[in-house]
Amino acid sequence: MRKGRVSIDRVFHALGDPTRRAIVERLSHGPVSVSQLAGPLAITLAAVVQHLQVLEASGLVHTEKAGRVRTCRIETEGLTAAEEWTAGRRTEWEKRLDRLGEFLAEEGEE
Amino acid sequence: MRKGRVSIDRVFHALGDPTRRAIVERLSHGPVSVSQLAGPLAITLAAVVQHLQVLEASGLVHTEKAGRVRTCRIETEGLTAAEEWTAGRRTEWEKRLDRLGEFLAEEGEE
Repeated sequence: MRKGRVSIDRVFHALGDPTRRAIVERLSHGPVSVSQLAGPLAITLAAVVQHLQVLEASGLVHTEKAGRVRTCRIETEGLTAAEEWTAGRRTEWEKRLDRLGEFLAEEGEE
Repeated sequence: MRKGRVSIDRVFHALGDPTRRAIVERLSHGPVSVSQLAGPLAITLAAVVQHLQVLEASGLVHTEKAGRVRTCRIETEGLTAAEEWTAGRRTEWEKRLDRLGEFLAEEGEE
């Protein structure tokens, strides 16, 4: 299901849903089975599976089946892609403010 | 248009679109007018305005009209909300790895 390269479109789209964010939050505390995930979310197992497919396709979650139990764990690729994108924007924006600050300081000296 | 409190659903949904991310990228280098934004994106002005409404509602962009020109600038609230959410997950996940490491070290000592 998961692509070799993470699509940032998919990552942000996946994180735009509160149930999917709740799944990622739960998994950041450690791996659990699909049925353990479904319990506290109060949604059907089928709905959980559907959300997991979206999360897996975006590199945010990895699932693995052993016998009859499918275990879910967090996948850092997706989270890292989201972090890198937002950090990149912040860097640009802060650089701009620094240049603006320098310009204003030079103006003040003249 | 913009809400007092940023909705993380809206922020991630807004960032899931490549054109909207391109707008945020452009604005992280400094404010521009709507028509300056539209040029390099090769989409209609109406489409840009629609994307800007989504970005403004999610606290990622702020627009202001002076006379006949509407100027767009980055709004840090949305970006900060996205960063805080991803950083929170990473913290949990790293804490868990630390606990796991400690546990394995203790096991090794016994």
